[in-house]
Amino acid sequence: MTSQVSFGSQPTVRPVGEPRWLDAEEQKAWRAWLFSTLLLQDRLDRELTHETGISHAYYEILVALSETPGRMMRMSELADRCLSSRSRLSHAVSRLEERGWVRRQVCAEDGRGQLAVLTDEGFAALEAAAPVHVEGVRTHLFDQLNPQQVENLRDIGETLLRHLDQPSA
Amino acid sequence: MTSQVSFGSQPTVRPVGEPRWLDAEEQKAWRAWLFSTLLLQDRLDRELTHETGISHAYYEILVALSETPGRMMRMSELADRCLSSRSRLSHAVSRLEERGWVRRQVCAEDGRGQLAVLTDEGFAALEAAAPVHVEGVRTHLFDQLNPQQVENLRDIGETLLRHLDQPSA
Repeated sequence: MTSQVSFGSQPTVRPVGEPRWLDAEEQKAWRAWLFSTLLLQDRLDRELTHETGISHAYYEILVALSETPGRMMRMSELADRCLSSRSRLSHAVSRLEERGWVRRQVCAEDGRGQLAVLTDEGFAALEAAAPVHVEGVRTHLFDQLNPQQVENLRDIGETLLRHLDQPSA
Repeated sequence: MTSQVSFGSQPTVRPVGEPRWLDAEEQKAWRAWLFSTLLLQDRLDRELTHETGISHAYYEILVALSETPGRMMRMSELADRCLSSRSRLSHAVSRLEERGWVRRQVCAEDGRGQLAVLTDEGFAALEAAAPVHVEGVRTHLFDQLNPQQVENLRDIGETLLRHLDQPSA
């Protein structure tokens, strides 16, 4: 028996031994992922904001509401869906309210909690922005990848989601 | 000749016809990429901030400075390297100055412009945070992927960077 800790077999325990540093190949993969995702997010956000006045984060809020029955969602669920803190979402919804695109109302079902409701004007703004958004996603993501790479992108994304998209993970 | 515009052959021209909507498979790939990257960034940032008091964005500033000769960089280059606006970077560097981790000095070479310099205390803070950072990257990214997926991740990242990491792209 050696005293060396095998981190690989203890994924839930904070390591106490030598850090598991990345080797040169892993460094390259990590850097390529990090910089490409930051650049892609930045590009999509800047172009969408420039052409429609809607940031990518606000766009995703409108999309989330548009996909629900009645185009409404509890603020707490909307924050989870948009990976936002409650305070950050509340601030964003206030900005969208000022534009007349979202309104808040008390949840009729149980009288507790607040609903965010997409207005007709908000839905129209989303419809107007959608062609710009999809063109950005096409130009900067799908046009750059071949069919095998698109399949790999989805495979990696879904694999990571199985780990990341659960409260206890 | 048909009047339909072939967007695929005109990547640099803003489309005037029907938007190139994503099909169901592309939607799945896009959503998987979007949500997995947002969740991964959020997880790494929260854990690093919780355990070291350094956000992921601040960590990347310290890393960038640590990799240069003399551990210093022009503010403008540092902003480009960290994909940050000048004003956002200036704000971040001010916070890092308050901790004694970075100091600013006038560029001796040409007397123009400002340099951000990593202090010994800043380097020590980076060294202390690095094991926590790499453990997060291992746990939430590399431990989830098999060797082929890691290779695919790097391939996709590098393909996207060839398009995104150039001023005119």
